[in-house]
Amino acid sequence: MAQGLIQPRTLKGFRDYPPSVMMPREQIMDIARRVYRRYGFSPIDTPALEYLEILTGKGSEETDRQLYRFEDHGGRKVGLRFDLTVPLARFAAQHIQQLGTPFKRYHIAPVWRGESPQAGRFREFLQCDFDTIGTESVAADIETALVIHDLLTEIGITNFVLRINTRQLLNGLLEKHGLQERATPVLRALDKLDKIGAAGVLQELSETAQVSVEQSEAILGLASIHGSVDQVLSQVADLVQGSEKGEAGVERLYQITGALKQLGIAPERYRIDVAIARGLDYYTGVIYETTLTDLPAMGSVCSGGRYDNLAELYTKQHLPGIGASLGIDRLLAAMEQLGMLPAVHTPAAVFIPYFDADRLASYLQLARVLRNEGLGVEVYPDPKKLGAQLKYAVQRGFPVAVIAGSRELEAGLVQVKDLRTKQASEVPWSVDAPQPLVDLLKNLLGRAESA
Amino acid sequence: MAQGLIQPRTLKGFRDYPPSVMMPREQIMDIARRVYRRYGFSPIDTPALEYLEILTGKGSEETDRQLYRFEDHGGRKVGLRFDLTVPLARFAAQHIQQLGTPFKRYHIAPVWRGESPQAGRFREFLQCDFDTIGTESVAADIETALVIHDLLTEIGITNFVLRINTRQLLNGLLEKHGLQERATPVLRALDKLDKIGAAGVLQELSETAQVSVEQSEAILGLASIHGSVDQVLSQVADLVQGSEKGEAGVERLYQITGALKQLGIAPERYRIDVAIARGLDYYTGVIYETTLTDLPAMGSVCSGGRYDNLAELYTKQHLPGIGASLGIDRLLAAMEQLGMLPAVHTPAAVFIPYFDADRLASYLQLARVLRNEGLGVEVYPDPKKLGAQLKYAVQRGFPVAVIAGSRELEAGLVQVKDLRTKQASEVPWSVDAPQPLVDLLKNLLGRAESA
Repeated sequence: MAQGLIQPRTLKGFRDYPPSVMMPREQIMDIARRVYRRYGFSPIDTPALEYLEILTGKGSEETDRQLYRFEDHGGRKVGLRFDLTVPLARFAAQHIQQLGTPFKRYHIAPVWRGESPQAGRFREFLQCDFDTIGTESVAADIETALVIHDLLTEIGITNFVLRINTRQLLNGLLEKHGLQERATPVLRALDKLDKIGAAGVLQELSETAQVSVEQSEAILGLASIHGSVDQVLSQVADLVQGSEKGEAGVERLYQITGALKQLGIAPERYRIDVAIARGLDYYTGVIYETTLTDLPAMGSVCSGGRYDNLAELYTKQHLPGIGASLGIDRLLAAMEQLGMLPAVHTPAAVFIPYFDADRLASYLQLARVLRNEGLGVEVYPDPKKLGAQLKYAVQRGFPVAVIAGSRELEAGLVQVKDLRTKQASEVPWSVDAPQPLVDLLKNLLGRAESA
Repeated sequence: MAQGLIQPRTLKGFRDYPPSVMMPREQIMDIARRVYRRYGFSPIDTPALEYLEILTGKGSEETDRQLYRFEDHGGRKVGLRFDLTVPLARFAAQHIQQLGTPFKRYHIAPVWRGESPQAGRFREFLQCDFDTIGTESVAADIETALVIHDLLTEIGITNFVLRINTRQLLNGLLEKHGLQERATPVLRALDKLDKIGAAGVLQELSETAQVSVEQSEAILGLASIHGSVDQVLSQVADLVQGSEKGEAGVERLYQITGALKQLGIAPERYRIDVAIARGLDYYTGVIYETTLTDLPAMGSVCSGGRYDNLAELYTKQHLPGIGASLGIDRLLAAMEQLGMLPAVHTPAAVFIPYFDADRLASYLQLARVLRNEGLGVEVYPDPKKLGAQLKYAVQRGFPVAVIAGSRELEAGLVQVKDLRTKQASEVPWSVDAPQPLVDLLKNLLGRAESA
């Protein structure tokens, strides 16, 4: 090649997913799809590119600034989606007449934001959303909590807390104090409670929302209520008494937590947390966040809430709903920190070295029979020295190898080697009688690792 | 809302995937992942956006023209990937030292091309690639054919033919006739055989590649050989005799077809087709195309081939390999034309109407027990009239409903209704003794449909 090489590199803020990262990521996506489907959520997909007017002004000033935008070949102004909620709103406005309600969908796809790169933040990341559109029923609120619970449980997270709140409490309190018009700046200030403390929030409430000290103290009083579900709800009920909205919020939290209790969800897995607000303005009812007890600083790994009207910018049809989003990449980072990710780099469990150069067909046939029995099998493609092949197998994390030289094959045998314990044993093998080998392999691998 | 509505629409050349399309698409992706993993291919992912210099000049003039390109927030020239092969080459150059060879990866992800919209062609489509990098072994060629065979078989396609060729035959013939420097224009001309006929190809060979009539006839003679594997190979062997490359090609085709025969692949599933050339210049060895016998005009639904050096633009490391790509969207279009797509729009099989307004907890509990037994269950979220709920269930394609009024629940019963046959029966039910209901449902649904 005459010209120089092009430097192989990813764009700043982007990354590759090699097998060691992609395998657990796919496993979590598989679990998410399984759980969503089990609750009757259907998959949809939408284009990565949308008309710019669909995307701008639908998130925050920040998402507007971070939008990847350009002109396409036809001179149309377009942008890469920055979340899956705006595309869902556009999709619902366009198709809900044919699809009907309730409409329950999930959507697992990448989104793009030109953020300033920080540790652990990337400009392309996966979202994994599920939503129930077209109902205000508490049944959908409860099911959303159950889906979050089942998702984390099946992923293998045992120490998590689902934090439950409803925007109705704060809205009711604001209403009671004549502050309902100032909900947005109040929410923004409250969201900073962890960062700037009560004094900071008081100052911001006074400066940006013209809230009096007395009113601020009532608002901060709500955010400071802690305790068991019953303790919190009885204190909150006192605070919002007289506000229709606030009382409805308390009632709904009773219904949700009552159902979780009745369905046998462990009491340490959920909690009322009236301090969570979720920055986004469009939430109007129940709000969920999910934190890992062992890594609280990681923030929420699965969040969502109820909204009044999903698609009001695109259609006159009133579409209330509730949804949540699993933060797959954040969860993976947490699992890595907690040592929960297995260090296996192969999707197949059985390794077959290409031992005898003239016997390729025998190895391929052995592999085919084992695959038909539901086992994952990799055949090394070149007849290199056995030691080099087994070194490769150990590095990739194959738990077992099936080794067959001409001598063994002629005697109707193969050697099964457990690459974890280094123990080896001979077992009878022929295409017509594969069962002893299959049984031994499945036994060595356990049911979980086969296939 | 004071301002006007924004028209909800997708960009020209793009489309939404509603559940009826996305469910079979996900099913095919699930099967592809399962088959790839079973052969030891690992998943990877790469960014949708790459530096423009990584992408330009790596495909054809056409892909260069179709590239979505722009400047990002940092003024970097970037583009959306137009295939998964160029990102694989960049990825391999960057990471192969750590990953080692052989490296077997699969990658299922969207790509973007600003093509002129045509029927059935979209500007965003899914690619589903698998490649084995770092080996020249025929073992990888054979496994690639087996993966294609297993993919289509497990998707449920019974009438397909895997067409096998190797670029070595044509290259050998060109070498024999002193035309090796003119391989590219000869390939381009040959690729048009179906469109412009032998006379057209002869003319183009003469005009653009300065090939004599005698030489052209030898080239067209190769492309016109038909028959059984043995017939084709013996004729081809005569034609390329004396060319080392051509003879090596014949030998490799013998090895591949011999292995497929020995492994019990049905003879009608594969064929040597010396006319297929695959436009892309970078193929150097075996080439695969897969056509559906019932829809030959659809073109190939799974294609690929062997290349000499994947990443030569980015690294000095020599990386030969072989790969193929399943055209999921084309395959889905074919299955739709052939009436092979089921008209089911729900991922869950069991529908529970919200019958009695005060009994929500009973329905949620019933659903939870059935889900724990591996059944997919949707609970209608609002206590509407039963008729309206069942109409919804039938429209969505739920096969069965479990109906429970207060009378039934108090008597420890539920009604199971088969929504396909309209037959209903009562069955005992309690949280502590769910088995009669579970058994009836699994029996009605068959093993395949239960979750």
